[in-house]
Amino acid sequence: MAENDDIQHHDDLDSHLREVQHLLARHKLVEDLVHRQDMPKHDLVESLVHKQHINELTHKLDSLHSADVAHILEALPVSERLFVWDLVKAERDGEILLEVSDAVRESLIESMDPASLRAAAEQLDADELADLAPDLPHEVMEAVYQGLDPEEREQLRAAMSYPEDSVGALMDFEMVTVREDVTLEVVLRYLRRFDELPDHTNQLFVVDRDEHLRGVLPINRLLINDPDIEVGEIMLTDTLTLEPSDEAETAAQAFERYDLVSAPVVDYHRKLVGRVTVASVVDFIREETENELLSQAGLKEGEDIFAPVWDSVKNRWAWLAANLVTAFIASRVIGAFEGSIEKLVALAALMPIVAGIGGNSGNQTITMIVRGIAMGHVQDDALPRLLKKEMGVALINGIVWGGLLGVLAWILYGSPKLGAVMSAAMTLNLLVAAFIGVMAPMIRNRLGQDPAVGSSVIITAVTDSGGFFIFLGLATIFLM
Amino acid sequence: MAENDDIQHHDDLDSHLREVQHLLARHKLVEDLVHRQDMPKHDLVESLVHKQHINELTHKLDSLHSADVAHILEALPVSERLFVWDLVKAERDGEILLEVSDAVRESLIESMDPASLRAAAEQLDADELADLAPDLPHEVMEAVYQGLDPEEREQLRAAMSYPEDSVGALMDFEMVTVREDVTLEVVLRYLRRFDELPDHTNQLFVVDRDEHLRGVLPINRLLINDPDIEVGEIMLTDTLTLEPSDEAETAAQAFERYDLVSAPVVDYHRKLVGRVTVASVVDFIREETENELLSQAGLKEGEDIFAPVWDSVKNRWAWLAANLVTAFIASRVIGAFEGSIEKLVALAALMPIVAGIGGNSGNQTITMIVRGIAMGHVQDDALPRLLKKEMGVALINGIVWGGLLGVLAWILYGSPKLGAVMSAAMTLNLLVAAFIGVMAPMIRNRLGQDPAVGSSVIITAVTDSGGFFIFLGLATIFLM
Repeated sequence: MAENDDIQHHDDLDSHLREVQHLLARHKLVEDLVHRQDMPKHDLVESLVHKQHINELTHKLDSLHSADVAHILEALPVSERLFVWDLVKAERDGEILLEVSDAVRESLIESMDPASLRAAAEQLDADELADLAPDLPHEVMEAVYQGLDPEEREQLRAAMSYPEDSVGALMDFEMVTVREDVTLEVVLRYLRRFDELPDHTNQLFVVDRDEHLRGVLPINRLLINDPDIEVGEIMLTDTLTLEPSDEAETAAQAFERYDLVSAPVVDYHRKLVGRVTVASVVDFIREETENELLSQAGLKEGEDIFAPVWDSVKNRWAWLAANLVTAFIASRVIGAFEGSIEKLVALAALMPIVAGIGGNSGNQTITMIVRGIAMGHVQDDALPRLLKKEMGVALINGIVWGGLLGVLAWILYGSPKLGAVMSAAMTLNLLVAAFIGVMAPMIRNRLGQDPAVGSSVIITAVTDSGGFFIFLGLATIFLM
Repeated sequence: MAENDDIQHHDDLDSHLREVQHLLARHKLVEDLVHRQDMPKHDLVESLVHKQHINELTHKLDSLHSADVAHILEALPVSERLFVWDLVKAERDGEILLEVSDAVRESLIESMDPASLRAAAEQLDADELADLAPDLPHEVMEAVYQGLDPEEREQLRAAMSYPEDSVGALMDFEMVTVREDVTLEVVLRYLRRFDELPDHTNQLFVVDRDEHLRGVLPINRLLINDPDIEVGEIMLTDTLTLEPSDEAETAAQAFERYDLVSAPVVDYHRKLVGRVTVASVVDFIREETENELLSQAGLKEGEDIFAPVWDSVKNRWAWLAANLVTAFIASRVIGAFEGSIEKLVALAALMPIVAGIGGNSGNQTITMIVRGIAMGHVQDDALPRLLKKEMGVALINGIVWGGLLGVLAWILYGSPKLGAVMSAAMTLNLLVAAFIGVMAPMIRNRLGQDPAVGSSVIITAVTDSGGFFIFLGLATIFLM
């Protein structure tokens, strides 16, 4: 795990990457790598120079924290990335594989032979191994599993049995436990026998003979109290506990609200099975919000920015297809009014405004509601109130913007009736957008679906087809 | 600060809110509150019953963690929120005001008189006060400031002098410091004199006589080492330090990468001025990503979900206006081709597809690039490579989707030439979208601007106007 010794001053956060890039570029190591087969006749001097440069780079990598090496690997194009990866000490492979993003991890694992993979995996704790397992070839996992002792096997099985977004997937097994009938003096002496305490040990877990959680002893309490006091006297019993099947998001909210550093995980007999630390919670929050940002734009997952074109096409395919279908439907709505457009071609120029403003406004509404649901501020019974509010906002926007655009249409095309139709259509489409913007996420939430996923496709589909239909329909009725 | 005693089992995270709502609803306290003026003649029994219910609610609120009370306040409509707020013990006001969102904080502060506000503010530490200060009336802040001792005044001045997104705004002043020439035994005895250690004290800061940071002593090291050892022998010297002017995002990335719980903040003479804890980093990360999610939909800030309609209109106004301008420009592009549309009305039905797919695909590209920049994976020199990749993705999408839609247009309108124009226009617009999707954030980043802000307006503006222009232009050339 992270050793503070390795950490440099914060100024170096970005400079590590630049330095490695500099080392790579200055000596044209990359070109050498790429073209090695093409120019096999290095003379001795050249190859010595190269050797020295490689040594320099290796040395630099060795001095870096695993998380920094991971960051550098993520920021390098594939060929340079694999070159650097080869230079990393084998015993750090496992730790670094844990730190890199999923997409980059794949590219690194592909480049390794089964023996190195196995060696890398064997350096990891059971909970870390569980994170890595889905990306490892089956034979490698099988071999690693055979090499574990029974307790670790059990932990690995447990960690792998929980879904990705559960507390079980976040937890680790590095708990320090004590009994409640010993004195703090005994605890202090017990701790001195450790070579190192697990990271984020801000509390000791107080358990009985059968590993049932009796309470927790915050290190701070251990430090400020008299050594003669017994653990049971000062331990906290009414503390937050998690269960492996709890949602990770619940745990994250609890850590955030109560400013926790670690929390015990118990099974339903209150037997201590693991702990969650703020480090894994921070990683979870980052990953989760990152995914949310990506999915808003219809990206299935984070892309390795240097991934092959084809991987990117696959990642973005589904959303584009869904949007094309809705665009095609909207196009057929327009097609149904071709007669009206032929008579009054101004309609063709004005209709995208009606559809566009509806989509934008609807996206604002749906984002508000989705955020409110995610933060637990929106209950089912808030529906009428939210509808009323969002319809109110839509009405004001309709009157202001619809009015303005109506006047512009009137001026441009000299027809007050066209201006009136424009205003009315914009207002109506804004009301539709507000209605769907509230209802869609509320209904999906009620049905137990994630209200965020696909929300922008839904709202665009409705406001495009709806906007064209309302505008062209009104125009056909009142202007033809 | 958070006392673990108050924390309940995680199951209660949501149930607190439901219970309070239940208490509010069952006894019609709300209606009573709203209609109090209308029905002044409570008989004695009724008012006694009410008193009891209010007691019950007060009791429930007292039992909750401040963060839970804050969450409940955020999830209640304004009238109920202020009713509950009145029941909260005055000495908890300050802490709860810190926990609620900005929008809700405003509504609570508006309801308080200057004396209560001052009392609430006076309960807070200097760093907390600095967070609250911008929302407090000037006279209140002035009065609070006068009541501070010189050291606190200095801390408050320091905390308020740093911009919102800097380390200075995240830091607090609750450091425990020790000297390097004392033994661990002395440190342990010193700590026992505390009634309580500051939250997140996972390391003590080792300073010299002039408060210059010499190193840090992790509590874990204090615990596992022999009490006769001197601090200087086991303290860490090569540890991460921050400066108040550093960007908060840099600190957040460091906490995330190195799994930190706290980090010292020093001025440029390496004098210890404060510390940052993982709790404030977690809050920062949440807030920052929340803002990013909101700004993607053009929401200036988080809205109180129960805010008046007018506040919401103002919050969403700028983005809608920007989008209307771009939509109007796109409309004028269409207007320039009205002659062509009159001759071939199919163009009107097909053109939104070309514009729409460009917008969607461009948004995917721009999101990838913006995320890559935010995570530090995209350097300036990656531009050619990224352009090539994104143009490649666009070309494939153009051939596949453009081809498909071209065939559909051919079938629908019986014109192979129209189909060919459709395919070509879609491919070209996808290429434009990819080009702008890469260039816009890269250029804005180079200019020191936030590449995320307004990115979707930019891409939509280009792909709408561009898509209409390309499609209608090609149609005019080849079909008229």
